Amino acid sequence: MNANGLEAFFISGSDPHQSEYLASHWNIRSWLTGFTGSAGVAIVTKEHAGLWTDSRYYIQAESELKDTEWTMHKMDSNAIPSYIRWVQEHLHKGSVIGMDGRTLSHSQYGQFDKWLKPYHIALQIYSDLISEIWEDRPEIPENPIFEHVIKFAGKSRQEKLEQVRKKMEELNVNSYLLTALDDIAWTFNLRGSDVECNPVFLSYACINREEAILFVNEKKLDPELIDSLKKDNIKIANYSDIMDFLNQLPENEKVLMDPTQVNAVLWKSVNGIKESGQSIVKWEKSIKNDVELKHFRHTMAKDGAALAEAFHWLDQNIEKLKITEFDLAMKIAECRSRKAHYYGESFHAIVGYRSNGAIVHYRPLPEQCAILESSGLLLVDSGGQYLDGTTDITRTFTMGEVSADEKLHYTLVLKGMLALSSIQFPAGTTGIQLDILARQFLWSHGLDYGHGTGHGIGFFLNVHEPPQGFAHTLSERGKSTIKPGMVTSNEPGYYKVGHYGIRIENLIHSIDAGNGFLKFETLTLYPYDTSLIDASMLSQNEISTINAYHTYVFDHVSPFIEDPETVAWFKEKCAQIL
Amino acid sequence: MNANGLEAFFISGSDPHQSEYLASHWNIRSWLTGFTGSAGVAIVTKEHAGLWTDSRYYIQAESELKDTEWTMHKMDSNAIPSYIRWVQEHLHKGSVIGMDGRTLSHSQYGQFDKWLKPYHIALQIYSDLISEIWEDRPEIPENPIFEHVIKFAGKSRQEKLEQVRKKMEELNVNSYLLTALDDIAWTFNLRGSDVECNPVFLSYACINREEAILFVNEKKLDPELIDSLKKDNIKIANYSDIMDFLNQLPENEKVLMDPTQVNAVLWKSVNGIKESGQSIVKWEKSIKNDVELKHFRHTMAKDGAALAEAFHWLDQNIEKLKITEFDLAMKIAECRSRKAHYYGESFHAIVGYRSNGAIVHYRPLPEQCAILESSGLLLVDSGGQYLDGTTDITRTFTMGEVSADEKLHYTLVLKGMLALSSIQFPAGTTGIQLDILARQFLWSHGLDYGHGTGHGIGFFLNVHEPPQGFAHTLSERGKSTIKPGMVTSNEPGYYKVGHYGIRIENLIHSIDAGNGFLKFETLTLYPYDTSLIDASMLSQNEISTINAYHTYVFDHVSPFIEDPETVAWFKEKCAQIL
Repeated sequence: MNANGLEAFFISGSDPHQSEYLASHWNIRSWLTGFTGSAGVAIVTKEHAGLWTDSRYYIQAESELKDTEWTMHKMDSNAIPSYIRWVQEHLHKGSVIGMDGRTLSHSQYGQFDKWLKPYHIALQIYSDLISEIWEDRPEIPENPIFEHVIKFAGKSRQEKLEQVRKKMEELNVNSYLLTALDDIAWTFNLRGSDVECNPVFLSYACINREEAILFVNEKKLDPELIDSLKKDNIKIANYSDIMDFLNQLPENEKVLMDPTQVNAVLWKSVNGIKESGQSIVKWEKSIKNDVELKHFRHTMAKDGAALAEAFHWLDQNIEKLKITEFDLAMKIAECRSRKAHYYGESFHAIVGYRSNGAIVHYRPLPEQCAILESSGLLLVDSGGQYLDGTTDITRTFTMGEVSADEKLHYTLVLKGMLALSSIQFPAGTTGIQLDILARQFLWSHGLDYGHGTGHGIGFFLNVHEPPQGFAHTLSERGKSTIKPGMVTSNEPGYYKVGHYGIRIENLIHSIDAGNGFLKFETLTLYPYDTSLIDASMLSQNEISTINAYHTYVFDHVSPFIEDPETVAWFKEKCAQIL
Repeated sequence: MNANGLEAFFISGSDPHQSEYLASHWNIRSWLTGFTGSAGVAIVTKEHAGLWTDSRYYIQAESELKDTEWTMHKMDSNAIPSYIRWVQEHLHKGSVIGMDGRTLSHSQYGQFDKWLKPYHIALQIYSDLISEIWEDRPEIPENPIFEHVIKFAGKSRQEKLEQVRKKMEELNVNSYLLTALDDIAWTFNLRGSDVECNPVFLSYACINREEAILFVNEKKLDPELIDSLKKDNIKIANYSDIMDFLNQLPENEKVLMDPTQVNAVLWKSVNGIKESGQSIVKWEKSIKNDVELKHFRHTMAKDGAALAEAFHWLDQNIEKLKITEFDLAMKIAECRSRKAHYYGESFHAIVGYRSNGAIVHYRPLPEQCAILESSGLLLVDSGGQYLDGTTDITRTFTMGEVSADEKLHYTLVLKGMLALSSIQFPAGTTGIQLDILARQFLWSHGLDYGHGTGHGIGFFLNVHEPPQGFAHTLSERGKSTIKPGMVTSNEPGYYKVGHYGIRIENLIHSIDAGNGFLKFETLTLYPYDTSLIDASMLSQNEISTINAYHTYVFDHVSPFIEDPETVAWFKEKCAQIL
């Protein structure tokens, strides 16, 4: 900081691709502060080292920062983030703040600058100031890349490039810079394992009207794959060559870049005409093709069977063995792993027993989690990556007797989930409009949940896939239109702190309902816990919907269950309500 | 244009205060083009004269522009307006467009500039280029201003100024520029009649920590009122002095201005530090005080009685007299005018018989409107300005036999209106979240309506009062939070083009429901048309709500009905449904 004349240094929690999950090379914030949560901003000044994080992480951060020089600050939901307000108050006029400009998007950079300028504080972006001082920094991962074959992907690279180029023509741009790892993986039908749970690989790409260049370290690709890419007129360049490439673009090259995705350093380095717009692939990829959808439906049946096997095992052994939340998470992954085309978990399973279920981002650790017993509620949110689809499902079960409150709360959550899944809505409707359908019944009891209601999901790609979702705020998820072909999670919940958490999550596919309207098809296949349902609170319509679903689930899932005893157990779980 | 080196000239449809309704002095667009609709943009180039308007006005504009040099263009709902795209395509690099910078807000100016800059087209703002060429331009109105006494307003000027200064302190600004006419009228407890239907007067105001300056032509005020304002430490300056005043502010004066309200010329003329933020009064005024609310409730009863008298007259005379839509509008205004503290219409009543009801912004003209008969649907949307409140109510009636479709559509609209009125919701909820409640039942039948669901309303002020509302788009109404004390219209509809229009509108008051939740109190008092309700489509809850409302309406409205025969008729109209 001194060498560069900086009064302060900002550390965001991102990588040069604005990824949600990071390769460990980019875990700068946790290396520096010791805080391991997934959200936060660190600021170092000459007098102060502060970490700002949100309410989910207050307790964790307090404990991880204890006995260090770091002070925890609370992040609030104000329009101007609390760390910016802190800087406005604590830094004097003329101060310069440094930051790795690759770890924030061009939009964020503009926003920060706008907030700081009136205070005469400048934000100076660098390419890398950390590697010099982080001695044992993990290398940039070099895991092999493999092809996601067309049998699963449904569309060839050439078809996708054509689709993208058609849009480029409409937008009147010559080049299109891709930096989001899942955008690149989708476009080229390639997958990797540089990031935990997300089958992506570190890369950039630039597509112009004639060719496409993939910036990735060649040693990650086997010769056959290189040949195949070259045949498709795709050039390979080094991952680190992207800056030079952008720098040498012709001056009149119109380059489409998504300012919310492209990092500030890359954005600056472009020599051509910067055309700010939404990433084409973000939207193209969100519309699943018919082959992907066929696989999705099939994979949901396999996935439901794996869950049936895991939960049947739990039922059989809960009184005999010591089973922890972590053990169950492992068992679920193991059952999934026996299904065809399994690749890995789509995220670290949340198995939250009793009061742990009320911690929204809870993750059981092997040495430090609850032992399951024959009473209380159990929340299980888990998912699998399969070559033929990605799953994400939450079910809440009772492990014993059910209280009136548990039944009331479960039924309110279920009614909301069903109301959202059952709506017919006109084209152009956005996530923030639909979100309330899942909350209305909780609201009528003065209850609510603090998270959004759903997110887009990839096809053998990231479990959180932009743009669309169901949200109660004006986030990208809230503002994006729900279009035919999208697959989105529907996951309302209720959390009684210190007691239990309830969440029910299905993936739903938006389809054309004719006359300019859309409706949803439920993809996820697993029964609800009927012992938690208060049927007297349901309409006749809701009851028929649940019963028809249970019949459908049993018919489609049971063929994938190996053991007949499990099938019999599962049949009971798919019971009708009266 | 030639004298100023302009390639094009833009004409918006606004005044220097960004008013929705204009004094005729500002009707530049209609003077220039002959088009009398309320929405549109005119652009003149050396080769072309174009008027852009939206779908509501296509037919009207086509007919009004016929045989003129003007060409109608269609305005679409694209992110970049179609007239901007037209300019981007038709003007060459280096062109300069002129515009009266007082007729667009600073935000709009910035937005236009952002769209045009990449095309190397400049937008040059002027103060007035039209007066020189508009020979018989109507004068700026000089109607008298009067006090809105505290008995009605509930709070004195001093109290309001104190309330505003407290917010100014929180925002750390020295001065606050008010340009919205209703903001000024509210703050100073003054009313005028410079604009039809809106009891406001042309003025600006600037409030600083010690004093307030009202920029208004002094001859509009009587000496007593001037004295009273001076006693309250309010200075009077000329309306036209505002520019010089802003120009001479000290350089370090922090001036709060709302960029969506302050016009581009005024914004530019400010010498101090421009603090961009929402108008304080916009939000303070939207929260009605207890006195205003008490008056609102009382005024709704008077207003309901006036409607009962008008509709009873219609019922008695429909077979005897020739009654047109316009006649009924006049009759309603006449019945209202007999009630205490009546001041005038709050907007030109929409009386839409049969297919006219399907034209959302229909207004019957004396010489050119339908004659009412004993069949078909009649939509009546009207409102009154009273010293003790502003009303806005829509009811749809059948004039004879009811078809199955009419009943279905009326009941779907009614169910939506009731669902929105009955919701309990957490603090922080915005209009776009709630809007869907009014649409959901229509959607389930593949139907919808093209307008928002509601708008804020003033207290003896503008019938459309920002910020809040219920909207399906990310407009100000959609994005604003519904707060306790706000009064908002709830007016879903269904329009069967060529056949009939249905709309049901109540004003609803948002109140604290405890535990961080809000709910609505219905203020409007007039029964629904029970012969249009299909009770088999209603839940038990909905039926009880309607019956309780009808009882409440009769009890509260009938004391204000003069004629006993009308009371007996009204009793039947407030019938229970079974």
